[in-house]
Order: sequence, then structure tokens, then C-alpha cells
Amino acid sequence: MDFGIIGAGSLGLLYSFYLSKDYSLTLYTNRKQQADLINKRGLSYFKDDTYTTAMIQATSDRNYKEDFLIVTVKQYDIEAIIDVLKELSPRTILFLQNGMGHLPYLSVLSKHQILLGISEHGAIRLNDHSVKHTGIGVTKISHYNQDKPQHSIFSQLLAEQHSLFGIELKDDWHNMLTEKLIVNATINPLTAILKVKNGELIKNNDFKQILYELFKEVVLILDVQNEVKLWEHVQTICKKTEKNESSMYKDIQDGRQTEIDSILGYLIQCARKNQIMIPTITFLYHAIKGIEACRTN
Amino acid sequence: MDFGIIGAGSLGLLYSFYLSKDYSLTLYTNRKQQADLINKRGLSYFKDDTYTTAMIQATSDRNYKEDFLIVTVKQYDIEAIIDVLKELSPRTILFLQNGMGHLPYLSVLSKHQILLGISEHGAIRLNDHSVKHTGIGVTKISHYNQDKPQHSIFSQLLAEQHSLFGIELKDDWHNMLTEKLIVNATINPLTAILKVKNGELIKNNDFKQILYELFKEVVLILDVQNEVKLWEHVQTICKKTEKNESSMYKDIQDGRQTEIDSILGYLIQCARKNQIMIPTITFLYHAIKGIEACRTN
Repeated sequence: MDFGIIGAGSLGLLYSFYLSKDYSLTLYTNRKQQADLINKRGLSYFKDDTYTTAMIQATSDRNYKEDFLIVTVKQYDIEAIIDVLKELSPRTILFLQNGMGHLPYLSVLSKHQILLGISEHGAIRLNDHSVKHTGIGVTKISHYNQDKPQHSIFSQLLAEQHSLFGIELKDDWHNMLTEKLIVNATINPLTAILKVKNGELIKNNDFKQILYELFKEVVLILDVQNEVKLWEHVQTICKKTEKNESSMYKDIQDGRQTEIDSILGYLIQCARKNQIMIPTITFLYHAIKGIEACRTN
Repeated sequence: MDFGIIGAGSLGLLYSFYLSKDYSLTLYTNRKQQADLINKRGLSYFKDDTYTTAMIQATSDRNYKEDFLIVTVKQYDIEAIIDVLKELSPRTILFLQNGMGHLPYLSVLSKHQILLGISEHGAIRLNDHSVKHTGIGVTKISHYNQDKPQHSIFSQLLAEQHSLFGIELKDDWHNMLTEKLIVNATINPLTAILKVKNGELIKNNDFKQILYELFKEVVLILDVQNEVKLWEHVQTICKKTEKNESSMYKDIQDGRQTEIDSILGYLIQCARKNQIMIPTITFLYHAIKGIEACRTN
């Protein structure tokens, strides 16, 4: 039983490295050049001051032949992949995206067993064939369509936990994604605009005040029940990852496209439907979009 | 008839240089070291690729003996100066501050002829005795207490206009300061947070959208009549100064205290009195205050 990992960014490389310890897998890259490099040099994994290289198979073909696929591409690249996935015979597909903007695409994949996951790992892609593991997290996974039988390899994954690569099964995919979306919608854009590490958002009283204003707009849109607990959760994540730069802050620093559309863009769409005023979210959305446009001009 | 110029930042140095061409003057510095340096080396004025040095008299004493004083200090330093000014015999005092936060202090100076001015010059203090004139503007001046007789030197100033240092007399100090406050409250904090030059705020569609949201909150607080004309004015200033970095952006870059309290802080106080919701202003105020706090920690 093999894994197919689609997307060779930081998460794709990290998951390929860990799964290649126990399973055979194919890493699907976007560019042939990257696949060739990985096939030739292997995949290098850096943690602290040491590194290991694993030989794995990579390809830029899109045949996705394995019957357990893990989709790690950013949400803005997902549409093209869905078109291929919907033509495949039934299999298990785990989606590891931020936000909820990918959910509407899943309706055309109902023949597959769909799993939704969120990754709490910190990882930086150092180059096309190297990844640095900067923060140990778990992968939370939940069934999206409960009627489909659970893939045997999934039970095996849950049973054979790796200390640096834990997997948690969650009951409610909606709660799981909502919690992650709240964290991403608050910490990511604020750290990207203010150019600070995650911990500053709660250490600095002025920043904490705007973090809370932003949080209130986000939970208003998502209509959550447990607001107090979720505000505690956001602060806990800031504290746990205090020395980290958020992925959006890093994207802005490196002049890359951010995930702002799948995070705040998605929330703005929801707010429009329900006519909710969200001035802070709107401000941050346009600030990040504007900075992206400056970089590409 | 002599001038006393209080404050030796960029504007104090610039005004000292120009006025020293035709008048004798004393420049009042905060630090003795700076006064000593200016007395020894003169005041150097840079424009484009040339520079000139003028010998002027500077002191860190606070006797303010001249009967035409120009106060150029930032608003956050004005309180200490007011205490000295109110003890002086009647004279003419021109205040050149941003915002309107200095107005409440003026009630104790009613024996003096008070002029309010706004400077449209661009200037950078290169060091304690050098200033660079980066943008030619005019100084707009208006009478604050109309009942006082106009100082003879003021008529002379208006008559002897210098091409690089024009002076305009305005009828209505309130309109004049309001217009300047709107410009400062919109362009300054946005450029400081987004880290862009003034022109980007109208070239970039996302930035222009948040500039307009911010503008709408500012004019709501100030209860202006001519909103359409003022929005044109803000855009014209962005265009005219498109290659400039705003003073607040420069303050943030250089780790200095900004004028956020006298600009957005003042507006927040006004909004509170009238219970006006101003989420964008509140966001920007705390973002700038938080960045200031990060720098000083």
C-alpha cells in the first residue's frame, strides 16, 4: 500500500520524509526540475543542527496512482488538482489545507473517502529538495464523509505513532477546521502586517487589543458557541509558538503569494452573505493584498 | 526685531536657516550639546547636491527673549514650553504643530498674539546641525486670536516672500488645521504601517480602498461639510508627494516616537465624546503604539 503526496512545498516535503520511513510513496511535484532533483539527490530533512537524507521517488506526472493520497498544495493551487482527482477510481484522499475555502470543491469527490486534516507542524522549505522541521506538532485528521469505509492504512497510521509526527483522530471536522481557521485568521495577517513573531501579539498590550478586536470579528462570522475557550486557545498558540514567524509573515518577507484569500477572503465572503460588518478583517485583507501587489509589480 | 525659534528638529533647523537670511534670530535647542555644536560649526542646509552653511546663534537656555517666537517642537514636547511662554510679557507666538492636540494649551496664552501655522515643507534632520530640504512647500499661517494687533514683522514676512520659502495667510485657522489633520491622519499612519511611499496609497487599488475607509472615519469625527473636495485633496497630496516617505513612516523606520497621539489619539478622544465607532483608526492607533513599544523594549 503506497502513499501519493501531492505538492512539494514545506508540508509536502515534511510528510514525504516521515512517511518514507515506513511506507513507499510517490511525491508529486509541480515542476519536473524539482522531481528530477529529488530523484537524484534525495530529500534532505534538517532538524536543529543535524540532517538526514531519504531517497524517495518524485514525479511531475499527475497520474496519482496510489490509493491513499495526501494533498498538501496551498488552497490557491487546488482547483487544477481537483479536476484530476474526480476522474480517479475511488480511493482515500487527505486534504491538508488552511482555511475552509477548499470545502466547496469536495462535492465532486464524493466517490472517494475524504479526510480533512490540519497540520500543526512548523516547517520551512530550504530549497527544492530540503525541508527544515522548525516546530513539532501533530496532524489532526477527521472524516469528512462518514459513510465511506476507513482505509486500513489509516488505522495503521494511527497505531504506529512517531514521537515527532503524531496523528490525532478528531470527531468533528467542522470544529477542527473552525478552530484552525480562527488561529490562522488572527495570528497570520496581524504578524504579517506588524512584522513581529507570534509571541509579540500577546506580550504587547496594544497588539493584544487589536488581536482581540480581530478575533471578535472572526468568531462573529463563524457563529461559534465557545468564544471564551477559543480566545484562550488563540492566546495559547501565540505563547506556544512565541518565537515563530507565522507562514504569512514569512510569505510576505520572501515576496511570495500568501494564503490571505483562503483565510480572510473566505471569511469576507461569509460575512457578505450574512451582512456582518467586519472593518478590521477588511482592512487587513486589503493591506495584505496590496503588499502582494507591490511585490509583483 | 528678532525671531526666537523654539525646537531644533528638522523644521526648527529649516526655518532658522531661511529666516537667518534676513533677520537675526536665536535657535532654542533642548540639549546644550546641540546648541554648542551649532554655535561652533554653523547650520548646514542641504538641497539636491549642494549645501550652504549659515552662522546662527543657538542656546539651550529657555529665556525666549525675542518678541516673535516660532514653536516648532513636536506636540508631545509642547507642555513644558507652554509653562515658560505663559510667564512672558505679551508677544507674538507662531505654533507649527501637526494635529490639533496643542489647541487646549493655548487658553493660558491669551495675552499673546497667537498664530497657528502648518508647514508643507519636506525636511530631514541629517544631524544636530544639518538639515536637508527634501520638498518645497509653503507655510500657511492664520490668526488664532483675532483681537490682537498684527505684529509688524509678520506683514514684512508676507511682503518679502522667498521663492523656496513662501508664506500664505489663511482666513480660517480651523479649516486650515482640519485639512492638514485629515492629510496627516490618513497618509501618515497608513504609510507607516504598510511601509510604502505616499504615492503607493493611490496607485495600489487595495491601499486606496483602505485609505478611503480611513478617510471616511476621519471626516465623520471632524464633521466636515466638503467631504468630496477633501477626498480629492488627500489624493492630490499623495500624488504631489508620491516619492516621499511620510514623517511617521520615517519615525517608525528610525525607531523614534511618532506623532500618533496628537493625530489619531486626538481623533479617538473626539470620537469617544460623540460615541462614534472608528474601527480602522483604532486599529492603526494601536498598531503604531505597539510598534513604538516594541522599539523601546
